[in-house]
Amino acid sequence: MSLQEAVSSLNTLKSQSMKSITWNGESLILLDQTQLPTEEIYIDCTDWRQVAEAIKKLRVRGAPAIGVAAGYGLILAAREAIASAPDEVTQRANFLEFANILKETRPTAINLAWAIDRIVTNIVFPCDTMVAALPLIEAEAKAIDLEDQRLNEAMAKAGATLFEGKKGIRILTHCNAGALATAGLGTALGVVRELYSQGQLERVYADETRPLLQGARLTAFELHHDGIPVTLLTDNMAAYAMQQGLIDAVIVGADRITTEGDVANKIGTYGVALAAKAHNIPFYVAAPYSTFDFTLQKGSDIPIEMRSPEEVLCFGGIPTAPTDIEVLNPAFDVTPHELVSAIITEEGVLTAPYNKSIADMAKKIIK
Amino acid sequence: MSLQEAVSSLNTLKSQSMKSITWNGESLILLDQTQLPTEEIYIDCTDWRQVAEAIKKLRVRGAPAIGVAAGYGLILAAREAIASAPDEVTQRANFLEFANILKETRPTAINLAWAIDRIVTNIVFPCDTMVAALPLIEAEAKAIDLEDQRLNEAMAKAGATLFEGKKGIRILTHCNAGALATAGLGTALGVVRELYSQGQLERVYADETRPLLQGARLTAFELHHDGIPVTLLTDNMAAYAMQQGLIDAVIVGADRITTEGDVANKIGTYGVALAAKAHNIPFYVAAPYSTFDFTLQKGSDIPIEMRSPEEVLCFGGIPTAPTDIEVLNPAFDVTPHELVSAIITEEGVLTAPYNKSIADMAKKIIK
Repeated sequence: MSLQEAVSSLNTLKSQSMKSITWNGESLILLDQTQLPTEEIYIDCTDWRQVAEAIKKLRVRGAPAIGVAAGYGLILAAREAIASAPDEVTQRANFLEFANILKETRPTAINLAWAIDRIVTNIVFPCDTMVAALPLIEAEAKAIDLEDQRLNEAMAKAGATLFEGKKGIRILTHCNAGALATAGLGTALGVVRELYSQGQLERVYADETRPLLQGARLTAFELHHDGIPVTLLTDNMAAYAMQQGLIDAVIVGADRITTEGDVANKIGTYGVALAAKAHNIPFYVAAPYSTFDFTLQKGSDIPIEMRSPEEVLCFGGIPTAPTDIEVLNPAFDVTPHELVSAIITEEGVLTAPYNKSIADMAKKIIK
Repeated sequence: MSLQEAVSSLNTLKSQSMKSITWNGESLILLDQTQLPTEEIYIDCTDWRQVAEAIKKLRVRGAPAIGVAAGYGLILAAREAIASAPDEVTQRANFLEFANILKETRPTAINLAWAIDRIVTNIVFPCDTMVAALPLIEAEAKAIDLEDQRLNEAMAKAGATLFEGKKGIRILTHCNAGALATAGLGTALGVVRELYSQGQLERVYADETRPLLQGARLTAFELHHDGIPVTLLTDNMAAYAMQQGLIDAVIVGADRITTEGDVANKIGTYGVALAAKAHNIPFYVAAPYSTFDFTLQKGSDIPIEMRSPEEVLCFGGIPTAPTDIEVLNPAFDVTPHELVSAIITEEGVLTAPYNKSIADMAKKIIK
């Protein structure tokens, strides 16, 4: 499939919902999300370094999406490793080095490490040669992609059960946990789409999500594209909207969830959760099992990515503040499990006590 | 004084703190705050309509500052009214019409209506002719200006008493309640300046304050200009900063305070107050008596100005979202008195029960 055909196929897909990641057998085509909503530019990645750069620069973002993209990136990495040397040892060493660089592009979302570990540990380690591993890596990357689509659908159905019998529902969401953040319908926005298709949704209130405006640029864009009613508001208006009785529930995605149910998600999520609590509005998190970090108990142990001051000091190249001042720019925050009303997973809805419900889910998946 | 001299005098003043409003006997010179921090442009208002336009477009903003600017605007209005007709009745009718237009430029900050009513009711009504009233209007406008400077100093001293014996204090503030928002040191930032001059302040955390970024453009600018350590953060990071133990107290200004102590202030203040409550961080409001609306009991009765969708949809002319979607853009929110730890006024620090402490303050002022 040529790039043009891929773009045309993406445009067809977009008539359902935005598609940010397409593997065409030769290269990985990524929708450059930093250019939305003004331009829809697709990047044709033929080198794993382009995939790493795209993850680092947030051209592809959203915890599940970067996991899927990294999976495909490993095919490109394996191809290069095989071409780099005639001997198996060097090929394998190079592949592992490339995989590690990919894995370290962003620290907070666990799905990235999860997808890479899954391919390296389950596929590459047991194979005798990189050449033998290559088709299996491709199959596993595709499996992760398809699985994410299926998980999104399962989460959408599970999430909708929280609203049974309700109509005219108004959902607030933060950042983008939609089709652009996943390989499928989205996590939080998957639930939103399901409610909309059932005629239960009145409107989505989308926090713009400073500093990079994923709510404005991506969520509002994606929902508007699909004809789902959306109202854009700045992050600091969420509490006002709740106070005015405009919000029935909050649904957000997640970048990492601990075994106790503490949730790392886009910066600002914690403030939204506090405001929801103060107004007795349910605060739901939608995330597949790949977002759970079964090695971490406490949210305070999740590494939080600190990003460049320029993201806060400038906008579109225009300085919005003195450029030589100190800036705080964490990309994520942690919402403690006490503020989480339920976690929507592909295995159903988890509720407190989360240490038990998350452990039960883990058992089901391992079984 | 020529415009150049005025600008030079402003620059001298700025070596202490930013000065946004200067009356030179002929015209009102306003620092165009919409152009900060990239450009310092001064507007020479010779017509009251320019003052009205400057208030409407937020070239001058901050509750006390727009009160002071409107006071001077009435001198220009009175001059035009006197020149507009030979007879007293027409002159007076025209003046009152101009005053009303000025008064309606922005609905939420009570200081605007307060300053205009003070001049119209106390000065113009008792005078037989507009010609006789003119010098008295000028004197009263100057009195409001000087009074605001004095009030700022008194509030700064009163506010500092809340931090007696403390060092290394880290204050979070929202929007701009500084020299740029008043005729003097600022309300919230007046307290900050006092703490800094006493060696008690470690740092100010300034919320950038979307959509118009007064925190980034004005507060960070003003503090940095004066050498006061400031860290800029996006609004949705305030709860994170509190969770990380970076904030000792919140101090904000106000646009209107009811007799029960409910506080209208820049949108986002309410969310900050909720987060402060959740972290047991004191939430202080600094405001002079002109910010109190003694005719309103409940915060829900304060009119909230809704502003143009473009402020949220675009930035510096660049669209940040699909431009044809719905937008929520309230300029203010109301923080209920339960979340207010104390109100810092020129008459001292008011605490709960506010209906009593505010009534006591009113009695003192009237006496």
